[in-house]
Amino acid sequence: MKKLPILLITSIMAIGTVMVFSAGDADSEDSEIFGGKLPAGYRDWKLISVAHEEGNLNDLRAIMGNDIAIQAYRQGQLPFPDGAVIARLAWKYVPSEENNKVFGRTQSFVAGPPTNVQFMVKDEKRYASMGGWGFAQFNDGKPANIVANDCFSCHVPVRDRDFVFTRYAP
Amino acid sequence: MKKLPILLITSIMAIGTVMVFSAGDADSEDSEIFGGKLPAGYRDWKLISVAHEEGNLNDLRAIMGNDIAIQAYRQGQLPFPDGAVIARLAWKYVPSEENNKVFGRTQSFVAGPPTNVQFMVKDEKRYASMGGWGFAQFNDGKPANIVANDCFSCHVPVRDRDFVFTRYAP
Repeated sequence: MKKLPILLITSIMAIGTVMVFSAGDADSEDSEIFGGKLPAGYRDWKLISVAHEEGNLNDLRAIMGNDIAIQAYRQGQLPFPDGAVIARLAWKYVPSEENNKVFGRTQSFVAGPPTNVQFMVKDEKRYASMGGWGFAQFNDGKPANIVANDCFSCHVPVRDRDFVFTRYAP
Repeated sequence: MKKLPILLITSIMAIGTVMVFSAGDADSEDSEIFGGKLPAGYRDWKLISVAHEEGNLNDLRAIMGNDIAIQAYRQGQLPFPDGAVIARLAWKYVPSEENNKVFGRTQSFVAGPPTNVQFMVKDEKRYASMGGWGFAQFNDGKPANIVANDCFSCHVPVRDRDFVFTRYAP
């Protein structure tokens, strides 16, 4: 496993302390997910859907799943089984000048530089206090300091779909 | 092979006649690509990038490639080798009320109903007059009547990238 800088470790410990109280028995160190590394082959996972977020995020995104997640989606299996992983890749939302020239108007927006990659990992026991989902984010391939319970609280409104926002795009 | 309705066959023949003149030695019947069927497994192909088109198209799209296309993209191989196939899936661009409720503002746009699926198929010999690319479109899983040379003419401005608009999103 890669060694983390002292400051990062300290930050994770601090966040971990908060999470012990806020997230109950959920894992207190998000960077532990996947051993602090991007899961192998996630860029080749199958596509679940695509989306665009305006506002501060201002991105285009692809939501992708490992085979367990994809199978659950296609079979309409809820809750998702343990081992399901959903990845959200995102890129800056940028106009494409070369496409627009062809269309003769500003209408084409494409994926610019990547922003970050987020994951939801299903493990009913390990993440029991967060609907069975662990959350992780990677910036430039490195685990980011996030408070998993903050992620989770946004997902609570879609509890009926096992806390997953994205619907499968046929 | 599925049987096509008489009217569709007649339409294809009519378009075929036009294309003999407009596309030179390119295949005169687009529905012939993939034998008139969506290529098996295309929905599972790896992701090249995502995009949003405003205007009449008003869609969110995923551009995906078969293994030959993906390998060429990742290795920066130009021109694409024979056998490369690029798929463009698209869905109506719709606001997500449930996402927006969570964000507290209208900022989230997701994939609605699918619109159509388009393909570029590399075969230097067969499609010699169109930069080596055949073009096809499927509506509701059925081959659409398109004039391949019209597709091609839009792609000419990106001749330097072997007539392919989409860049790989890392």
